[in-house]
This record gives sequence, C-alpha cells and structure tokens, in this order.
Amino acid sequence: MSTIKFAIAGLGRIGKIHLDNILQMDGVEVVAAMDPSKECREYAKNNNIPFITSSYKDLISMGDFSAILICSPTNTHADYVEMGALAGKNVFCEKPLDLSLKRVLEVLNVVNESGVQLMLGFNRRFDKEFKKVHELVKEDAVGKPHLVKITSRDPGAPPVSYIKQSGGLFLDMTIHDFDMARYVVDNEIVEVYAKGAVLVDPAIGAAGDIDTAVVTLTYTDGSMAIIDNSREAAYGYDQRVEVFGSKGMVQSNNIFHDSHKLYNKQGIHAANPLHFFLERYQEAYKTEIQDFVKGLSNGIQMSVDGNDGLQSLKIGLAAIKSLKENRPVKISEIV
Amino acid sequence: MSTIKFAIAGLGRIGKIHLDNILQMDGVEVVAAMDPSKECREYAKNNNIPFITSSYKDLISMGDFSAILICSPTNTHADYVEMGALAGKNVFCEKPLDLSLKRVLEVLNVVNESGVQLMLGFNRRFDKEFKKVHELVKEDAVGKPHLVKITSRDPGAPPVSYIKQSGGLFLDMTIHDFDMARYVVDNEIVEVYAKGAVLVDPAIGAAGDIDTAVVTLTYTDGSMAIIDNSREAAYGYDQRVEVFGSKGMVQSNNIFHDSHKLYNKQGIHAANPLHFFLERYQEAYKTEIQDFVKGLSNGIQMSVDGNDGLQSLKIGLAAIKSLKENRPVKISEIV
Amino acid sequence: MSTIKFAIAGLGRIGKIHLDNILQMDGVEVVAAMDPSKECREYAKNNNIPFITSSYKDLISMGDFSAILICSPTNTHADYVEMGALAGKNVFCEKPLDLSLKRVLEVLNVVNESGVQLMLGFNRRFDKEFKKVHELVKEDAVGKPHLVKITSRDPGAPPVSYIKQSGGLFLDMTIHDFDMARYVVDNEIVEVYAKGAVLVDPAIGAAGDIDTAVVTLTYTDGSMAIIDNSREAAYGYDQRVEVFGSKGMVQSNNIFHDSHKLYNKQGIHAANPLHFFLERYQEAYKTEIQDFVKGLSNGIQMSVDGNDGLQSLKIGLAAIKSLKENRPVKISEIV
Amino acid sequence: MSTIKFAIAGLGRIGKIHLDNILQMDGVEVVAAMDPSKECREYAKNNNIPFITSSYKDLISMGDFSAILICSPTNTHADYVEMGALAGKNVFCEKPLDLSLKRVLEVLNVVNESGVQLMLGFNRRFDKEFKKVHELVKEDAVGKPHLVKITSRDPGAPPVSYIKQSGGLFLDMTIHDFDMARYVVDNEIVEVYAKGAVLVDPAIGAAGDIDTAVVTLTYTDGSMAIIDNSREAAYGYDQRVEVFGSKGMVQSNNIFHDSHKLYNKQGIHAANPLHFFLERYQEAYKTEIQDFVKGLSNGIQMSVDGNDGLQSLKIGLAAIKSLKENRPVKISEIV
Repeated sequence: MSTIKFAIAGLGRIGKIHLDNILQMDGVEVVAAMDPSKECREYAKNNNIPFITSSYKDLISMGDFSAILICSPTNTHADYVEMGALAGKNVFCEKPLDLSLKRVLEVLNVVNESGVQLMLGFNRRFDKEFKKVHELVKEDAVGKPHLVKITSRDPGAPPVSYIKQSGGLFLDMTIHDFDMARYVVDNEIVEVYAKGAVLVDPAIGAAGDIDTAVVTLTYTDGSMAIIDNSREAAYGYDQRVEVFGSKGMVQSNNIFHDSHKLYNKQGIHAANPLHFFLERYQEAYKTEIQDFVKGLSNGIQMSVDGNDGLQSLKIGLAAIKSLKENRPVKISEIV
Repeated sequence: MSTIKFAIAGLGRIGKIHLDNILQMDGVEVVAAMDPSKECREYAKNNNIPFITSSYKDLISMGDFSAILICSPTNTHADYVEMGALAGKNVFCEKPLDLSLKRVLEVLNVVNESGVQLMLGFNRRFDKEFKKVHELVKEDAVGKPHLVKITSRDPGAPPVSYIKQSGGLFLDMTIHDFDMARYVVDNEIVEVYAKGAVLVDPAIGAAGDIDTAVVTLTYTDGSMAIIDNSREAAYGYDQRVEVFGSKGMVQSNNIFHDSHKLYNKQGIHAANPLHFFLERYQEAYKTEIQDFVKGLSNGIQMSVDGNDGLQSLKIGLAAIKSLKENRPVKISEIV
Repeated sequence: MSTIKFAIAGLGRIGKIHLDNILQMDGVEVVAAMDPSKECREYAKNNNIPFITSSYKDLISMGDFSAILICSPTNTHADYVEMGALAGKNVFCEKPLDLSLKRVLEVLNVVNESGVQLMLGFNRRFDKEFKKVHELVKEDAVGKPHLVKITSRDPGAPPVSYIKQSGGLFLDMTIHDFDMARYVVDNEIVEVYAKGAVLVDPAIGAAGDIDTAVVTLTYTDGSMAIIDNSREAAYGYDQRVEVFGSKGMVQSNNIFHDSHKLYNKQGIHAANPLHFFLERYQEAYKTEIQDFVKGLSNGIQMSVDGNDGLQSLKIGLAAIKSLKENRPVKISEIV
Repeated sequence: MSTIKFAIAGLGRIGKIHLDNILQMDGVEVVAAMDPSKECREYAKNNNIPFITSSYKDLISMGDFSAILICSPTNTHADYVEMGALAGKNVFCEKPLDLSLKRVLEVLNVVNESGVQLMLGFNRRFDKEFKKVHELVKEDAVGKPHLVKITSRDPGAPPVSYIKQSGGLFLDMTIHDFDMARYVVDNEIVEVYAKGAVLVDPAIGAAGDIDTAVVTLTYTDGSMAIIDNSREAAYGYDQRVEVFGSKGMVQSNNIFHDSHKLYNKQGIHAANPLHFFLERYQEAYKTEIQDFVKGLSNGIQMSVDGNDGLQSLKIGLAAIKSLKENRPVKISEIV
C-alpha cells in the first residue's frame, strides 16, 4: 500500500491532537501544514513537516497531497472544505461545517459534484463506550429501541465570548448529542422539543444563550430520545447514554480517573469521571483519524459524512426555534 | 400512650399489606374491617378483627375508631373519604382521590372543614432510596437543583381492562413520578410537556392510551425534570431518580435480587432488579403506615396530604392535555 | 397440617429475634418459654406465651411441645440439648454446641440415640447473598472450585470479658467462616494454617486472644480457602465470599444502607455496609427458622446439623493449635 | 536539558514496548540496539536506530550512551547488568536480576561499587490503580495497615517449557505480588507460608510446579498479607489489591474492556477485565520508563532499585521452601 499524503489546516488544540495521532500511524505522511499563528507553525516545524504556510490558498496550491484535515476556526470550515473539494482533495473537517443551513447545503453540493470524500469530526462516535452501545443495539441485544437517554454535561462553561459566536448551547454542545441520538439507534429525528434555562451563570443569559437544557426528540417510528445538558457539572465531564428497548436496556458509563474504592467511617468514596473531553476522548481521536484513513484507503463511504453534519445542524436549528417559540418543531420546518 | 383504633375499608392486595403491617405495630388496634368480597372478610376474620362488614356505611356507623384506611377501588375513594371525614375520622387513602379535579376539590373542602387529618398513599416517598435522595437534596449536598431525572418502568403492562378505567398511563403510573418530581426537590411544577407512543402493545393504543412516554416538567424557578416511562421493561421493575444541581449530583438505584457477580468467559453477570412494586416497596409500605400513625399521634400535618394528591392530579391532567395537543401546557390551565 | 408446638429457652437478644419470627409464621405455636431473667420472662408474657418459667427443667417437664429452641448462653447448650433430646424433643440450638470436642461428641451421641432432629444456628447459610454463591457453585457456574476467599470483619470488638469465655476469635467469630468455607463448595477441610496478631486492642492480647487473623484452609481435593478477620472494621460489618473455579468466579458483596451515589467536587460517595450482624442477617434469621420448621414438618435431615457444628469446632480447634505452634495442623490431629 | 542517550539490549515483546515508549519521549534518544534475532534488529532499523548489533559486547563497546535498557532473556540479566555497570552505564533491567540469590548479591555489589543507577522493571508499581492504593495508604487514609489482600490470576498458563526455566509460579508470577505486598504499605516481609496445588493442568505438576497458590506473608509489625494466584482465570486477567487498616479499607479493581451494562430478562451483563498484562499495563509501561528517565535526570535514587529485586527474590525463595516443607519460613532463613 502506498503512503497517503496529508495536509493539515489549523494547528490549534484539536489540530495538534490530530497531527500527533497521524504522525504515529503507518502509511501516512503529513507533507504540508497551514496556520496563521507563528507558534502553531513552529509546532509543525518541530514535527518535521516539509511545507509550512500561513495561507490556506498556498496550502492548496502546494497540491502534493490527497487528503486534508481542516481544524481551523468554525467560520472558515465552509470555505476551506469547498476549496479543498474543488482542488480534488478528500477532506476531514471538524464539526460543524457551518452554522448556516444554506451554506452547509452549498458546500455539500460542491463536495458532491467534486466526487471527493468528506468526513465530519463527530469524535464521540469513536469512543469505545458509545461504540459498544451502538454495537449492542445493532446486534438486537435490546430489541426494538423505545427510549434513548443522553446525559451530556461539561465540567465548566466556556467563556461568554466563545458562546457569542458558537451558535450557543444547542449548536456547540448539544449538537454532539443530536448526532449521538441518531448514531446509537441508526434512526432519524422528525421532531424536537427543547426547554432551557439559565441556572449556571447569568452572563450566559445576558449573551442570549442558556446553560441548562432538556430536549425531547422523536424518531421516525415514534420512539423517543431525551437529552439533558448542563454547562457546569461540579464533578467533571458527564457523558452517558442509555438505550431502552423491547428486549432490555444498555447503558454506557463515564470513564473515571481510577477504580479505587475507599471505605471509611464516613462511607465509600471513589474517583470522579475524567474531567474534560480531551482526556475522555483521547483514544477516540486516534480511532477517528484511523477510521478516516481507512475510509480513504478503501475508497468507501465515510463513516460520518456530510449528511450527518447536515442532520445534526437541522436538529440544532429546530431546537433553537423550539426553545424560542416553546413548542415542538418538526425537522421538516427547518429549510 | 393510649392505643389508636383503626378501621380498614378494602382488603384487596394493598389492603392486606396495610393490615398485616398495622397488626405488627405497637399502640395500634384494628377494630373494624369492610369489604364486599367474602374472601376478604374471611381474611379479616382470620386476623381476629372484631367487627366485619360488607358495607362502608355500616363501618362508619360502627364508629368506635379514630382512623380509617381506605384501600377500596379508586372510584370509591372520594365518597369514602368524604363520609369518613364527615364522621370525624382521620383518613389514610390510597391514591388517587379521584380522577376528576372538581371532585377532588370538593372532597378536600369537606376534609378541611371537618378538621380531620388526611394522608395520601404515595408509597414511594417512604422508599429508603428516594428518601435518601430527598434528604441529601434537603441538606444542600447537590446545591441548587437544576435537573431531576426520573426513570419509572413497569415489568409488564396491566390488563387493557384496567387501563380503560385507570385514567391511563399518566394517571395510574406517571402520577407517582409527578409526586416524586415534587418530593425530591420540594418544589412545584408550573408547566408540562408530554410525548408518548404505543410501542409495547397495540391493544393499549386501541384503548386510547400510550405505553411509552417522556415528560418534561418545569419548576417554578425554571429548573426542569424529565420522566421516562414504559409499561414493559424486560429486566424487571426500573425505578431510579437523579438530581443534578450546582454542587453535584445524587442518584438512587434499583434494588436487586442479590448482589452476586458471576465472572465467566462471556463476561460479568449480575441479578436483575426486584421484579415488581410489591417486592420493591415492601419496606416502604411499612414505613408509610408508621408515618401515618406518627402523624395521628403527634396531631401534626401529615407528610403527604390532600394537596399532594391534588398537585399530582393537576400535573397528570396537564400531561394528558399536552400529549393530545402536542404542546407544553401550564398547570394554571388546569382548572 | 397440624400446628407445631414450640418451647423456647433463652430470650436474650437472639432469643427475642427467633421468638418474633416464629410468632409471624403460620402452623407454629409457641407454648412455653424459659429465661432466668425477669425482663425476658416479661417479654414472653407480653407475647401471650401460656407457660413461662425460669427453670429449664420445668420447661422440659411441661412437655406439651415437640420442638425446642435453645438460645441460652453457650455454656448451657450441651446440657440443654441433651435434656431436650432425652425428652424426645427436636432441637434448634444456637452455635456452638460446646467449646469442648469431647462434650460435643457426647451430646451428638445422645441426640443420635434419641432419634430426634437437631439443627445448628449457622445463620449465615440463610443469607441470600451466600445462598446465591452456594447455588451457583452447585450449578457448576464456576466449574470445579479452586479457591475460596472469605472476608469477615466485625464493626467493633466485643468486651474483653466476653472474649475471655467465648473461646476466642477462632471459636466465636471465625467459626462462622469455617462453616461458610465448608458450605459454599460442599467440601471438607483437611488442614488449617492460622496466623494472627493483636493490632486492634492490646487488651485483647492481654486476655490471650488475637484480633486480626488470616487462615488458610486446605480441602480434601487440594483446593484452598483463605479467611481474613478483624474485630474492628471502621466502615461497618464486612462479610464477603468469593469462589474461583475452573470456569469462572462468583462474588457476593455486602449489603449497604442504601444505593445512593453522591457526585461532587471531591469524588463519588456511597453508603457504608450495614453496621452489624443483626441488621445484615435480619432476613436470614427468618429464613433459618422457616427452614427448621420445614425440616420438622418433612421429617427430613436438617439442613445444618450436628455434624456441621462438630466439623466447624474441629477446624477452630485446629486453628488455635496452628496459631500457637505456628505450623499447619491436620484436622485429623484434633481428637 | 541535554538529551539522554540510550542503548537497548533485547527487542523481543517487552523490548519493543519499551523502545516504542522511549521513542515518543522528549529529551531522550536511542542510539544503539542489540538483539541476536534478525527480525528484532530489523525492527530497530525501521525505527532509525543508528547502531545495531547482535552482540552485547559490541553494544557496550560502542559506548556513546549513558543509560541501557536490558530486555533480553532472564538468564542474561545478571551478566549484562554487570557489564553495563562496569562500563559506567545506568541500567534499567527487566525483573528478575537472576534466580540465584548468590548471583544477585554479586551483581548488586558490582552495581554499588560502580556508582551507577539501577532500576528494576516491576511495572505494576506504575499502574494507576495500584499507585492510587499506595498513595492513599501513604496519606494515612486507611490508618495503620492490618491486612493486605492481593489477587493475581493469569488468563492462561504459559507453556510448560517456559515454566521449566522460569523458576516456577513463585518466581515468575507471584514475585510481582511479593513486590506489590512490599510496595503498597512500604513495609518488609519477615515470614512466608505458601500452600499450592495443581488444579489447572497436570502437565504443570509433572514439570514440578504448581498452578494455584495461596501465600500468607507476615510484615515486620505483625500485620499480614494474603496472595492468591491461579495460572488460569476463565474471565481474563485478574489483578486486585485491598489494604485494610485501622481507619478503613482501600480497594483497587481490574480494568475492563468497557463499562457497558446490558440489562435483559436473564440479568445484567458487563464486559470482562482486560485479557492480558500487555493491555492492562500498557500505560504502566510508559510511566515506568518515564520514571526511569526522571530518575536519571535528577540523579536521585531510583524508585524501584536493586534491593527491591533482592527482597522479592528472597520472599520467592522462602515461598518455594515453605511449599516444599509445608511450614512457615522466615526470610532470615534465606541466605
């Protein structure tokens, strides 16, 4: 098998993780990197990447690669994917493609016409806990799914400045849960009812967003999912999924710092869940990029594609509308 | 302390449980029993109850008791409580008082004017698992509550004939969860959104009811509860509560047949939850009646009173309306 | 089925428990009670027992019963069982029969010749956790047993005065574990190696006993058991069993106050094991007496008989010898 | 900080793991590798190691490194460590140094006189589960330790050919537990009693070894440890530690494939422990080498040194003697 040549655009926190993971893989070579920040370009240099630039155009012009990883800020995703696709490159892009449905549809159209492969970075699908749930549901271990329960709580709220441009809770955080709801039971959502509140930090409310939410999703067959979110769980990162069906139930649990149990006069004590997504999903990020490379090599459909990004965005936009109008919103209303 | 004299009306499944529990208590005597069924009266006789009748009027006329337990069918509750109250008896009544809001208000009015004590049989409040959650929330162990999650799934659906007269899922089953939602955080509900489906048994749908449901409740302070229900959990009776707040989270779990773990080539295996509410709440029923007796002796406010019955009924009626109209319904709409 | 008439000798802590449990059973009547203490005889009177005496001889002379429960102090067991057997009564006796092997053999001889039934009060065999382990081992769920692990730790040491006459740790506490070791795998012990220390309270050492111990037992087939004991576990009563075999492993766990989990900044917290044997084995005591009554009714071999008492005593005596001589001791040396 | 130059001797299974881990570290460079096998030298070549040889003498002669990793077969350890030490190299050596006490003492003498640093590869000390137990014991979370319980069971027996030259169960497997017993409570062993049996495979017995064992260890202060071993646990690799003390107890648990729970009619099902030590201790191997490098850089005492190897060997030899003579053996007898 010949080596696959990669370019990477964006070497911030998540870009660095992807780069490190790729550099440990066989059959893959990173030939070019792009980042406007000097510190990030330095990082590329230290990793012996031959071509380094601060301009995405230059990166694309360099040309000697077949796949590109886009890890730059969200507002560049759509343009960069489009340019990459037009240049015939297969693309891995961090989610979301864009916050505008119209723009996402345009980009997917370009990708489609270019005939390149596109994978979206829904990293949680590659977490072994959630994969196991998916696998057991697929094997009919719980029978026909009736109820899906997703708990997703962050250890602390991001800066309000981030929230202002992220699209808010439903588009920067719950969007992972919308994807999870579709993933674990391989079914589509037709209706959304979202309820939210500002209970963690009034500044989030002042910025026009919520920090605590409960969302009810209805699938095509009438089965239902419930998601609960909080921007701030005192005990760390809380990420659990439960699927209940005609034959039983499967639950995934958090991953903990360690498994010790301390018994004393006061009771029994154990370690908290891993504190943040970077720890929790460390392995998932590796598996994700391996999956992308596998998709490239096999010339097959990517496991998480543009449509997955599109559907999650639609559910997110429906949730926003539902919260605003305090009524259930059909996905078909989101056009 | 002098002995408290009791009468009991209704010696079906739940009446027998209460009778057995009372007979084991000190300072309490059961002097009269009423049931239209010969088998049930026989049961009273075998327990040496001196006065036994098939007529509730006769029971009330007998008169030589200060407290009465009403365990007869739901459609007799309102009349029996009213008659008991007018006769100056303190009343313990199995829930619900009635399925009609108007009738419940009438009965509570009579109770109020009679100056008797009334306790409603929300047995789950006396389960040690839920009591512990309540206690920890009260002690501020989780801080200000933000989210309450209640899972309540039965091991099998009741006969359709029962469902036809029970008021349906929200009034015969979820009503316990509505009470639980109020109980664990000592807060009131202001809005309900209910979503349901027929996924277990089409006959339930044909009878006009649902068998699977997800309900979102909003509290006075904007915090939220989510309830998920199913009439049929393959693995037994599933009753869990989670309260998430500003300082942390508390979860209760099911009670299991035993705690064994069997490790073999196939994995690790453990016992299922107790299969039905009679097993699960065996101890809770004892504690409940003890609590009623304590309330009588102390002449204090009952721990679960008429207003608790009223509020749960209102939430249930709002859930029915919400399901029908597929929109959030304010409790204030239920009049 | 006709009613079985009982007498009970000894109404201390454990006698009261047995009496209460019998009084709740059908087909059983307690017609006579004996205790030297006035308070205990008062207890019998309040429970409407017709014949009450302070003399065991009088009790036996009264005669109108077929079974007798012996719950008096250990040093009376041998004589009382003997007298009961000679009078043709079936006997339930709290363990141990006696601390002297010679005396136990004499008593068992009398029981044998009298043709009465004898059951020993090894209550732990009736605990549902240990029963489940036994049942799974019997069903071959773990294959051929290779290793048995028994943890048995008390929440606090008894008074030194008690220890002085109890036979010490191996005969008053570990003896339950010796029985458990035989019970869970239905196999006999051939050799014992005991190691002990005074780590909890020097006063126990001054009284000639130990408070912490590790005992290795060897079964007839070379498989092994290990027991660890402490007189004082800060977190409550710790009673666990693990059986490891050719096909896998089964573990029982403690029973906890409740199943809550509290997550906060400091970690996850849960409730301690039940604090003492009275709580832990509350249900086991009921099942034990029901089992005795069943044994009586069916005229079958008792589930825990004189030989079980004898074997545990021999293992205990071997452990004492092993500790003293710091060498493994064969059961066959104990004569 | 200047780069530390490494040589590595032995690139079998464990050597490859160490090499891969070192290559991912900063401040470290592997300049030379030695292995008699062509395949292993090829592995070194593919990892761009400049100097590759099949002779340990050549490796030492090459000289341009300050530290050496010895991952060659056990029977070469003593000679290689000695030669490395004499050449002034700091040494990391896989355990055991040697199976002969005399030889170990000689080697440690040479190491001592050469003034080089020596670290022994007791990898389990670097497992986060055991580290947490050690840390909590050190922090006095369980008070004064009274009992240590170590369970260590392999998923399957090694080939009999391996057993014949490994020193047997106590020297190739339990030796890790002997080290663990010393590590978790920072205390020394003074006496050993070992009991063993052939219950897994008669071929192991024919080779003069046992496959199942129970070992009692006594510490300097009279507190005790118990170890149970099996060559074959049907459910995977079982590695647990429990320390019980005056203030409470701490337990570590196995690490499992994932945390899913599947509830169905048959019960609750979960995943097995990780199957083998390579999976279980993957992270521990990384931490171990990082610890060695840290020890080198800081010029401090190594965290696991020659004395640790010596003590574990002595306990192992005492266990062998104890098993043979069926009596407790003092460590002071092993000379």
